[in-house]
Amino acid sequence: MIEGLKNDNKQRKLTYGMVGGGPGAFIGDVHRKAINLDGLASIAAGCFSRDKEKTLETGRALGIAEDRLYASYDEMAKKESQREDCIDFAVVVTPNATHYGAVKALLSHGIAVVCDKPFTFNTEEAAELTALAKRKNLLLAVTYTYTGYPAVKHARELVASGDIGEIRFVNAEYPQEWLATATESDENKQAAWRLDPSQSGKTNCTGDIGSHVENLVSYITGLRIKKLAARLDKIVEGRKLDDNSTIMVEYEGGAKGLYWASQIAIGFDNALRIRIFGSKGTIQWSQEDPNYLTVSYLDKPTMRLSRGRDAFASHAQSYSRIPSGHPEGYFEAFANIYKTYITALMKQKNGEKLTPEDLDFPTGDMGVDGVKFINACVESSDKDSTWIKF
Amino acid sequence: MIEGLKNDNKQRKLTYGMVGGGPGAFIGDVHRKAINLDGLASIAAGCFSRDKEKTLETGRALGIAEDRLYASYDEMAKKESQREDCIDFAVVVTPNATHYGAVKALLSHGIAVVCDKPFTFNTEEAAELTALAKRKNLLLAVTYTYTGYPAVKHARELVASGDIGEIRFVNAEYPQEWLATATESDENKQAAWRLDPSQSGKTNCTGDIGSHVENLVSYITGLRIKKLAARLDKIVEGRKLDDNSTIMVEYEGGAKGLYWASQIAIGFDNALRIRIFGSKGTIQWSQEDPNYLTVSYLDKPTMRLSRGRDAFASHAQSYSRIPSGHPEGYFEAFANIYKTYITALMKQKNGEKLTPEDLDFPTGDMGVDGVKFINACVESSDKDSTWIKF
Amino acid sequence: MIEGLKNDNKQRKLTYGMVGGGPGAFIGDVHRKAINLDGLASIAAGCFSRDKEKTLETGRALGIAEDRLYASYDEMAKKESQREDCIDFAVVVTPNATHYGAVKALLSHGIAVVCDKPFTFNTEEAAELTALAKRKNLLLAVTYTYTGYPAVKHARELVASGDIGEIRFVNAEYPQEWLATATESDENKQAAWRLDPSQSGKTNCTGDIGSHVENLVSYITGLRIKKLAARLDKIVEGRKLDDNSTIMVEYEGGAKGLYWASQIAIGFDNALRIRIFGSKGTIQWSQEDPNYLTVSYLDKPTMRLSRGRDAFASHAQSYSRIPSGHPEGYFEAFANIYKTYITALMKQKNGEKLTPEDLDFPTGDMGVDGVKFINACVESSDKDSTWIKF
Amino acid sequence: MIEGLKNDNKQRKLTYGMVGGGPGAFIGDVHRKAINLDGLASIAAGCFSRDKEKTLETGRALGIAEDRLYASYDEMAKKESQREDCIDFAVVVTPNATHYGAVKALLSHGIAVVCDKPFTFNTEEAAELTALAKRKNLLLAVTYTYTGYPAVKHARELVASGDIGEIRFVNAEYPQEWLATATESDENKQAAWRLDPSQSGKTNCTGDIGSHVENLVSYITGLRIKKLAARLDKIVEGRKLDDNSTIMVEYEGGAKGLYWASQIAIGFDNALRIRIFGSKGTIQWSQEDPNYLTVSYLDKPTMRLSRGRDAFASHAQSYSRIPSGHPEGYFEAFANIYKTYITALMKQKNGEKLTPEDLDFPTGDMGVDGVKFINACVESSDKDSTWIKF
Repeated sequence: MIEGLKNDNKQRKLTYGMVGGGPGAFIGDVHRKAINLDGLASIAAGCFSRDKEKTLETGRALGIAEDRLYASYDEMAKKESQREDCIDFAVVVTPNATHYGAVKALLSHGIAVVCDKPFTFNTEEAAELTALAKRKNLLLAVTYTYTGYPAVKHARELVASGDIGEIRFVNAEYPQEWLATATESDENKQAAWRLDPSQSGKTNCTGDIGSHVENLVSYITGLRIKKLAARLDKIVEGRKLDDNSTIMVEYEGGAKGLYWASQIAIGFDNALRIRIFGSKGTIQWSQEDPNYLTVSYLDKPTMRLSRGRDAFASHAQSYSRIPSGHPEGYFEAFANIYKTYITALMKQKNGEKLTPEDLDFPTGDMGVDGVKFINACVESSDKDSTWIKF
Repeated sequence: MIEGLKNDNKQRKLTYGMVGGGPGAFIGDVHRKAINLDGLASIAAGCFSRDKEKTLETGRALGIAEDRLYASYDEMAKKESQREDCIDFAVVVTPNATHYGAVKALLSHGIAVVCDKPFTFNTEEAAELTALAKRKNLLLAVTYTYTGYPAVKHARELVASGDIGEIRFVNAEYPQEWLATATESDENKQAAWRLDPSQSGKTNCTGDIGSHVENLVSYITGLRIKKLAARLDKIVEGRKLDDNSTIMVEYEGGAKGLYWASQIAIGFDNALRIRIFGSKGTIQWSQEDPNYLTVSYLDKPTMRLSRGRDAFASHAQSYSRIPSGHPEGYFEAFANIYKTYITALMKQKNGEKLTPEDLDFPTGDMGVDGVKFINACVESSDKDSTWIKF
Repeated sequence: MIEGLKNDNKQRKLTYGMVGGGPGAFIGDVHRKAINLDGLASIAAGCFSRDKEKTLETGRALGIAEDRLYASYDEMAKKESQREDCIDFAVVVTPNATHYGAVKALLSHGIAVVCDKPFTFNTEEAAELTALAKRKNLLLAVTYTYTGYPAVKHARELVASGDIGEIRFVNAEYPQEWLATATESDENKQAAWRLDPSQSGKTNCTGDIGSHVENLVSYITGLRIKKLAARLDKIVEGRKLDDNSTIMVEYEGGAKGLYWASQIAIGFDNALRIRIFGSKGTIQWSQEDPNYLTVSYLDKPTMRLSRGRDAFASHAQSYSRIPSGHPEGYFEAFANIYKTYITALMKQKNGEKLTPEDLDFPTGDMGVDGVKFINACVESSDKDSTWIKF
Repeated sequence: MIEGLKNDNKQRKLTYGMVGGGPGAFIGDVHRKAINLDGLASIAAGCFSRDKEKTLETGRALGIAEDRLYASYDEMAKKESQREDCIDFAVVVTPNATHYGAVKALLSHGIAVVCDKPFTFNTEEAAELTALAKRKNLLLAVTYTYTGYPAVKHARELVASGDIGEIRFVNAEYPQEWLATATESDENKQAAWRLDPSQSGKTNCTGDIGSHVENLVSYITGLRIKKLAARLDKIVEGRKLDDNSTIMVEYEGGAKGLYWASQIAIGFDNALRIRIFGSKGTIQWSQEDPNYLTVSYLDKPTMRLSRGRDAFASHAQSYSRIPSGHPEGYFEAFANIYKTYITALMKQKNGEKLTPEDLDFPTGDMGVDGVKFINACVESSDKDSTWIKF
């Protein structure tokens, strides 16, 4: 407990509404708790389910006035936009298939949006929404959570500063265990919709977690994919979508990459890990041990940087809430996205100019990249792992 | 992301006031953010500093009405207790020397209290406050944070169930680096008051972090100290209070223990670690990697239990907010103490009977034990490490 | 220090000769020390260099009689085979280009051979040598060192016993740092010959360490490659052979695999690691921490098996020389190959029948598989990573 | 496999004899294999057991001529000393009670000795033997194995060079599991003699492994103990000697230390670990992961030095046989003691002057220190953990 933090609570809180996140929906509660952590915004409206009764139930539990609990996102978008105290932004945490419709309705009514990832099913939709947000000057975020960790932000600054030289190779992976058996045929609601092509589109594993790999690499390194070759496997018998995928990548400029995502990896929880090999050094980070960054330079001992203890770049450090050795985790990463997003909204409302650092949250453009990546993986795999150019 | 969590937000939020936690005070902000996480209570009053201007500044930033910003804890206790919308509890996060006075004032006016640790300077004061709270039927908590981790709670249940047999030996330690140099003579406010006998009492290191070791061992094992022999070292030249301490312990029933706390351990952040050796097995836990519990049984491979993935006892598991592999940290541990405490307050207000599980937060009694322990360590060290009986 | 080991020193030592391994040759000394460890054979002849003077120098230092120090492997093969006290076997540790000629000469003269890996440049040569050894009933080994670790042998038995179910996916990698700069243009003798196509053939990284990956997977799992797609990269500017390679594999029976080998991975020494994912569990092993095996079963805590402490299958355990917690390393792994090979030679000389366990050393057949694998990787990479069928 | 090692095999091998190390004796075989590794000496004589038949059996298996297999160490000392080809040194690996007699007999007959640790039961005996060796100018070593690791030697050089500043505190521990149950009443031969006061003296755990802690700290830091306070526990019911011990230490100059040794620590194998805290930095080393050294400097990221990869001081590095990432272990540590000892013997025989680096093996003086330490621990524990001055 070394030193105090600046009090960054602001006097006026913003308000938000939520689409999705009703009873039994894990991720909606995570978004709400993450927003709560800093207390910069409070929930004021919601359409938590297609079932109005469930929306009312959740809304009451959250203390929302009944006239702001809506039967559909269309209703919510329309009615909120007509209120004087209209929500400042909306959070969309429905299953993937509904993202496009909900985000479009909200943006169309002038409401800024934070959307869960993956953004949409196809690139055109993603591009359309991003363009819409830009046209209307509305801040649009896609919650690639892992970009919120201070160590990830420091890794990004190390790369940008040339600290590890020119990037040569990236090896990133995301193994999980949770689909190692045919749990979609049991009563596992998550598994059921994620493995149902009608709700999840053409991919499960690659879209759900492979896209996190793509985003994390892109966020830290700034590398743009030139082409890729992928193999998507359906390993568990009877499975309709992929549960394991391997992707060879080539970036613009010539660096190479290798991604692996799996949901049949018994013993692994959310073991997202990235290793970036440069001409002068290597950076390693693991989501399950997120407060540390491992950095190696040629012919020097490998170092373990501890968030808070060791010098992180000031922007990265500004996302750390507590001293080193007191672990921060997933909620804080999530909260960091919201902290940036909400603070940017406040600045925008105050007519302040937004700097690139103000906009350091995952944007709609990243959502577009994610959809492109996913679709290219599916196409390559369908064509016997041939190279797909971007 | 396996399954949804039950929505445990409650309709009616409680309100609280805070004593201490003004500008530059790290721990006050941690308490507020931890309470925010679950959103079960909101701040409504405060006396954040001896300097009324600073109180006003902090209070305004937090959106508190000016008539509930007070010049002293006495004023706050008195005036709040006269309001219809009196705060439901108060959080005391001042330097140690003020704990006794503030807690006494609040309890005396019928206000429940959460007090930072260590509780008070001497055992009599701690016992007096605890007795006062009991007499007035007010819930009193002392924030030994580390008891809030789900893995710690599971460890406690493993011990209670006899899983590792009879406990034979405990080895616990808490090394830190932050006082490895004479930082108290620089502008380090934390260091200055912690190493000033007039503000911190007769000990620094043993009282600040040694007490966490004592509490963690006691919480997990239930063992009661019978006697101890301690050596408190002032290692950095010119230091007025201890910065390193070694304590040999004997428990009632014959088990032995060894504690080490240090603030001159370069390279260590908050490396609290406990190892409990039983006749059938061993449990290990480290605060810097808090989502895992290492368990070894005689002649069997050592196992690593992952919060959420592997079966934790249901009470322990109820404190986990997200699936395995998405790290929870210090805020969540803190939030768990508040979640239990506030939920217990709500039940109490509703006239419900409180079970032992409802009261699974660090209590005033633990605060008393902590003060006893600290004083015995000081006494032993002053007497050339002779054994002090409890 | 739990219990004594059986004394497995035998009365009569065998003798061996060495081809290669002169001054400055690292691997020759490793072979000699590994043989020394158990003391089952002693060196009696040698042709350590093309330069007879160097051979004499090395031979004298090793205490070898001058009449058994030869100018060429041909001379050694011929003259030794005519002696009554002919060496029992020869060790070939020359650069790769010489393997074929030396092994052929020795086998042709009836001398059993242990050859460093990779075996030969092309499959035909490897197959020819293997056939020759079989025809002459001579034991032929190729020193894939990593198969010698007890934990690797236990992993193999776990797979064979069905302990982790049907294998679904294998992820194996071997990153190193040592060629991260253009060290071949300096005075690094190793780098110079390994990166010179005329001495190393069509590949450097894939042949040198990718082949270890292939062999380790094959040894532990018994899986046979059906097809593969590879990308061999020349990352450091001006490099003539690959220094990084990615290989997607499909096995007979449908399981999939992913291999990565790299010599530009700053911060990595010899970080060979294998992860085997089955329908019931996962096995992980890392060469840099070789005394442990990590095993996870569905819905159970991950376990860390410690060599010697935890039950290894009896055959695997028989390769362990000291109790758990006293690390064994690379020499012991190497020595295990020689222990098995020499003991089998002894049994063969005694007219005993050799069991499969007696022959648990890396054989010429593995050498053939290795060459096939390497050549398929080169071919695939040359054809834009197209799939090559086996 | 980066670069070749110098061939350090010497033309003329020395010969040695062994006292103890018969059938079922673990440590004798370790000594023999460790000597074999470098091949600098070969066994030529032995008295492996009090039972001449067993000596003959072991001797024959080792290929020793029958006239050099002796019924007693006295006979061996006497007869060998009369031979022209007398052994160059003797290795004593009997149970502790016999050390004094055997070493005295050998030294008295002019034979250099390597003795297993702990050296003798009491300080007088240890001092007597050390004086005898000095008087006769015979090299005397006591095999404190852990001083043989290259990383330990580098740690020693870091301390000596002032790299981590003035040493302030040392925390060292050695937990094991193997006596967690009353195995001495089973057929465990090791346990039986170690826990029998008539064979092991006044202590088991403190003497067996506590002494390793003392030696390792002393070797690396050069600190001399000024006083200590110890508690020796007999934890398993019915046990006659200690199986767990805690020792508080104060060194000359004012630094403090804490040692813990345990044989009831389920889950721990040979988990010797040392942490040295200086005014500028910290060094950590663990015997179970011996190829790495963890070094932290104030306000800098913690570094992990890898043997061979990162710069070790040249003397320390000279004990490394293979490149980084290829693990060396216990045998190599043992072999390093013998390599130094035998090379020093050779130099002595050649009339060369021995430098301090030539004598970097654990000496009789260290053996004396060890016995002093053990006896002080026993005395302190018997006196209710009072401080014992040295």
